[in-house]
Amino acid sequence: MSSEFGKILRVSVFGQSHGKAIGVNMDGLPAGEAIDVEELQAFLNRRAPGRNAQSTVRKEADQPIFLSGVEDGKTCGAPLCAIIENSDQHSSDYEELRDKPRPSHADYTAWVKWGGQADMRGGGHFSGRLTAPLCIAGGIAKQILARRGIHVGAHLACVGTQSDALFPLYPTAEAFAAIAEKPFPVIDDACGERMKAAIADAAAEGDSIGGVIECAAIGLPAGIGSPMFEGVENRLSAAIFGIPAVKGLEFGVGFTSAKLRGSENNDPFTVEDGTIKTTSNRAGGILGGITTGMPVTLRVAIKPTPSISRPQQTVSLSKMEQAELVIRGRHDPCIAHRAVPVVEAVTACVLLDMILEETPHGIE
Amino acid sequence: MSSEFGKILRVSVFGQSHGKAIGVNMDGLPAGEAIDVEELQAFLNRRAPGRNAQSTVRKEADQPIFLSGVEDGKTCGAPLCAIIENSDQHSSDYEELRDKPRPSHADYTAWVKWGGQADMRGGGHFSGRLTAPLCIAGGIAKQILARRGIHVGAHLACVGTQSDALFPLYPTAEAFAAIAEKPFPVIDDACGERMKAAIADAAAEGDSIGGVIECAAIGLPAGIGSPMFEGVENRLSAAIFGIPAVKGLEFGVGFTSAKLRGSENNDPFTVEDGTIKTTSNRAGGILGGITTGMPVTLRVAIKPTPSISRPQQTVSLSKMEQAELVIRGRHDPCIAHRAVPVVEAVTACVLLDMILEETPHGIE
Amino acid sequence: MSSEFGKILRVSVFGQSHGKAIGVNMDGLPAGEAIDVEELQAFLNRRAPGRNAQSTVRKEADQPIFLSGVEDGKTCGAPLCAIIENSDQHSSDYEELRDKPRPSHADYTAWVKWGGQADMRGGGHFSGRLTAPLCIAGGIAKQILARRGIHVGAHLACVGTQSDALFPLYPTAEAFAAIAEKPFPVIDDACGERMKAAIADAAAEGDSIGGVIECAAIGLPAGIGSPMFEGVENRLSAAIFGIPAVKGLEFGVGFTSAKLRGSENNDPFTVEDGTIKTTSNRAGGILGGITTGMPVTLRVAIKPTPSISRPQQTVSLSKMEQAELVIRGRHDPCIAHRAVPVVEAVTACVLLDMILEETPHGIE
Amino acid sequence: MSSEFGKILRVSVFGQSHGKAIGVNMDGLPAGEAIDVEELQAFLNRRAPGRNAQSTVRKEADQPIFLSGVEDGKTCGAPLCAIIENSDQHSSDYEELRDKPRPSHADYTAWVKWGGQADMRGGGHFSGRLTAPLCIAGGIAKQILARRGIHVGAHLACVGTQSDALFPLYPTAEAFAAIAEKPFPVIDDACGERMKAAIADAAAEGDSIGGVIECAAIGLPAGIGSPMFEGVENRLSAAIFGIPAVKGLEFGVGFTSAKLRGSENNDPFTVEDGTIKTTSNRAGGILGGITTGMPVTLRVAIKPTPSISRPQQTVSLSKMEQAELVIRGRHDPCIAHRAVPVVEAVTACVLLDMILEETPHGIE
Repeated sequence: MSSEFGKILRVSVFGQSHGKAIGVNMDGLPAGEAIDVEELQAFLNRRAPGRNAQSTVRKEADQPIFLSGVEDGKTCGAPLCAIIENSDQHSSDYEELRDKPRPSHADYTAWVKWGGQADMRGGGHFSGRLTAPLCIAGGIAKQILARRGIHVGAHLACVGTQSDALFPLYPTAEAFAAIAEKPFPVIDDACGERMKAAIADAAAEGDSIGGVIECAAIGLPAGIGSPMFEGVENRLSAAIFGIPAVKGLEFGVGFTSAKLRGSENNDPFTVEDGTIKTTSNRAGGILGGITTGMPVTLRVAIKPTPSISRPQQTVSLSKMEQAELVIRGRHDPCIAHRAVPVVEAVTACVLLDMILEETPHGIE
Repeated sequence: MSSEFGKILRVSVFGQSHGKAIGVNMDGLPAGEAIDVEELQAFLNRRAPGRNAQSTVRKEADQPIFLSGVEDGKTCGAPLCAIIENSDQHSSDYEELRDKPRPSHADYTAWVKWGGQADMRGGGHFSGRLTAPLCIAGGIAKQILARRGIHVGAHLACVGTQSDALFPLYPTAEAFAAIAEKPFPVIDDACGERMKAAIADAAAEGDSIGGVIECAAIGLPAGIGSPMFEGVENRLSAAIFGIPAVKGLEFGVGFTSAKLRGSENNDPFTVEDGTIKTTSNRAGGILGGITTGMPVTLRVAIKPTPSISRPQQTVSLSKMEQAELVIRGRHDPCIAHRAVPVVEAVTACVLLDMILEETPHGIE
Repeated sequence: MSSEFGKILRVSVFGQSHGKAIGVNMDGLPAGEAIDVEELQAFLNRRAPGRNAQSTVRKEADQPIFLSGVEDGKTCGAPLCAIIENSDQHSSDYEELRDKPRPSHADYTAWVKWGGQADMRGGGHFSGRLTAPLCIAGGIAKQILARRGIHVGAHLACVGTQSDALFPLYPTAEAFAAIAEKPFPVIDDACGERMKAAIADAAAEGDSIGGVIECAAIGLPAGIGSPMFEGVENRLSAAIFGIPAVKGLEFGVGFTSAKLRGSENNDPFTVEDGTIKTTSNRAGGILGGITTGMPVTLRVAIKPTPSISRPQQTVSLSKMEQAELVIRGRHDPCIAHRAVPVVEAVTACVLLDMILEETPHGIE
Repeated sequence: MSSEFGKILRVSVFGQSHGKAIGVNMDGLPAGEAIDVEELQAFLNRRAPGRNAQSTVRKEADQPIFLSGVEDGKTCGAPLCAIIENSDQHSSDYEELRDKPRPSHADYTAWVKWGGQADMRGGGHFSGRLTAPLCIAGGIAKQILARRGIHVGAHLACVGTQSDALFPLYPTAEAFAAIAEKPFPVIDDACGERMKAAIADAAAEGDSIGGVIECAAIGLPAGIGSPMFEGVENRLSAAIFGIPAVKGLEFGVGFTSAKLRGSENNDPFTVEDGTIKTTSNRAGGILGGITTGMPVTLRVAIKPTPSISRPQQTVSLSKMEQAELVIRGRHDPCIAHRAVPVVEAVTACVLLDMILEETPHGIE
């Protein structure tokens, strides 16, 4: 077991970058949930390559084909399996890589694990391409959550040293939608331009660059999550680290809290319109693993794309000696902006799973 | 289900701060593993309160009583259950807290979740006290891993703005042991003094302070972990966020990678003594979720203790109105240093679980 | 992992027959559920040895000590751990068995699995004694289910060739209670006398005898369970086969259905008082893994106690040669009647788990 | 979650009888395992309808299309997803059934569970057709097990009152293969003719008939399985009850053991060629949930096909009143013989899963 997550709602991802198809199976969806295919496609397009100058030119429709679980446009209770057929494949680009693992890719570890049997063309099952089926699952989860008043949004918070504005104490569904419509998913477009310039600079130098994504979920009731190992942070982290290139995750102010005094970090309680809230949200909407009713906020660190065109030091697995590697083909100089909907997708799947666990027939 | 983790080795924690006993059940341990009780006690003592001036004066022996799973000093294959009896309890301190949830504690979320039925005396099941049974499990896991050449160590990397030295590219078991023997778990004792001063300052002002813990595991073979959602990062994160007060987690350079270029972040491969290694370890020993054979490294952000003696704003749950709260009793002004063995413990349990999954009869 | 079951409600059993204590941890119980300790003790007494002439004379109080999860007589949301201290131990009886595995016991397989490290005194973790903590869990589950109008009852359906009456189409909670109060749990006491005679005959000849238990659950709403591998039959069977000595399980008419025509086996639907029912219940209240709203019925085959006083053929593990074994000590000539509350207990735990999954806040 | 099973090897089934495709995802297969497609197809053909006069005339190729997980004819470590496209669909036959649930089918329970949203055309996700993807998974598992010297075979043990010979103490792979090649899977062909006559009789009367399948696995090492809830019986039963129409399951002599004395039921140990064996195998190769090294044997009760052409009593869901139903179309008068490879398939998947858990790199 490896490419699955979830407890009530199981999400299983399959496929290799250059295989026949990639896809996802969702077992445990509530029945009778309409799937707006157009909205789903718009969500998938946010992740798709070739959307702007900052992305690789490989262009695929990423159009989901529903094999099961949907009847008359609605979920029918049975597992929902959707696939995307692969088409645009240049496997020849990857022959050299069978012997020379790319630094900071999974080529070497997959080779160790599967004794050279791994299909690593295009990164195989480790490819960022596998985030497309994750987005099918997440796009569906987002629609189901939205019907329950829960919205998940994200933006690119940093690229290199450039930092976008942060979400306010109460982000809105409208603000999420506005970001989702932008070709470059930031709050502050001026900052977005600087980020794009930083990406272009890296690309010009045959290099790549990392970034940070901020994600928020609003509308969650208080009381979701369980103590210790089934809290919101546990469940989200277990899934978020499944997104390729994620190397860090923090909730609320996260690592910053380590530098704070308790008096600076604690969120005072208050009563507003008969509801208990906190006047700040440094906890990221989670205390003891359980939602407070405030927005759940997280930040995800995305490492720079390991595929760069500069010559790199690696080894020849057949000769067990040092070797130089030049990765050919075109690669994204930054994947952080494309990963924004993926973080939303995974967050939405996990939260829907937890909502279904605690209120299986929905929040009323 | 909430207070359990693990797949082959299931670790279940139970107990409330002021209940009869706290404990842990370990199901899936290999049989015939000797338990060095003295070594285990020494490990537990590292977490115990009252070890130095920086900790609360509540003093408990934290002496494990083995109810099952051990015969003649060795694991016998059956589930190992060990408990610690509670003794030193001042439940009266906590009466007010039933109505006035402490800011940034789980009091409020537990109240929502369990409808006022939660036993929140001393933090109940959410108390840091529950990390004692986690340390029993982790101390045993550490002994079993050590027999297989795998060692887990940790130190306090930051308190407020004070930063300790970091682990070198190849930390050693000896270095881990040296830190473990220190009353204040840092590499650089001069820095440790500055950290203690920062803690004392916070305490003097009725306040608390957060910190960061760096943890490393050495001796792991390459190839442990599975792609996507069963990788080392997924499994560790799901458990690490179960430690109270953890709000952030990063592997390798983590969030720093977001600021780097690919050429700065990639770890070149090399051959050393017939083994493939990387000349740097910014990946923290994990690529595609799978171990590279380099040390696994992680950093954990611990928020400042939410219990501070300064007056704080909260609400009265019975009156649903604003209220002021002064938390009485003595509380740790910093828990980050006491959490160092806890991070080791949880890391050891997860890694042992993964080792057992992939090489059930041990690494030879 | 081995001695655990459940999804939302995790039940973990620990202990060895001659260890310090045996116990159970229940993680995921709803909060605020009163535990009637007297009623629980009465339930445990039904399983306890020494209740009548048909059982072994080993007598233990089987009095649960609650370590956690209960406050003021109610569940508090945190994991509930309860133990029973062991007292009456004659470990010397078992020395010979370390070398000579008892036929049809787990001695040999435990030796293979745990390389001679198993604590097999009194059967160790495989002992029927471990059903005592199962009954603690089940007794609590039964109380919680009863509050939701769901009742679980069982009786001894067969011993050897003697067969009790079967439950009617609609068993009642009163009938369950009446059986529970009998020292020998049958519907037809005259048949019970014949069963006791059969057991006494077997005992007189240094032998033992098997039996069948019929169990039913009433009050379950329709719609509980999921298709294929998460149906009521899957979940119950996975747990029921964890009761020592169980070798067969059938739902509704079970194996008899294999001999029937469709027209004889199908249950016609009907409407009664505005509710859909079936006029027969050969399906045992389950279609497609999902409850129909009719009573869930099952039958469990219990093999004869493998411990008999007659000489038996076995092997010496140290000499790897044929050996004769005479098992000393007193043993139950039949365990089927003592297993009746155990089947109820496990059934109750599984059903509560499934109810919590689908209607976490209870059935209203 | 519902249509999945397995721990290390996760098998997820998806699809509805009349949807676009049905399929299976296998996550956790070892890498480098050759898949003999011809052998797999031969295995699938054993389950396929229209194979002999006893089966429905609906004829589908059941040809698997591999979407992922296979490269150059071998497993590549990534999840293996295979689908079968649906073609031959007469959905109009099923319109009436939306309102009038078929007795002893899942129509009613699915309607309750999914509020009328279920796609129940042809039985939807509950259809016996879903056993085709189960057989893809099982056929692959059987090939991988065979390479490790483990073979799984089954035959039709009973139809109505006709009983085939039983497997001997030591069944052979050759005997399994011989049965697999027969169009009607029995040991004793003369008995097979009587079974076919019984099926034809039932069909002639517009009725159906049930059966029992005996399955055995040989070559398993001793020591597989864990005590209590992770034993071979627990794991097998949880999956076997996922096969539609299964209502009973027993291991070894099963229910018969309830009628035996201990002296009749116990299996004496003996040493043969330096290996410990039992001279009888009434335990079905399992003691304490753990394999003894003797063949694992089980029997599965299959109820008569609920679809019969005789008029039946049901209800109209829209009118909530009694209604008569005549099921149109052609249906198998017996599914037990077609379920023989399905029982093999599920058994093989579970055993491979358990083998991978305990000896991940195979048995050497």
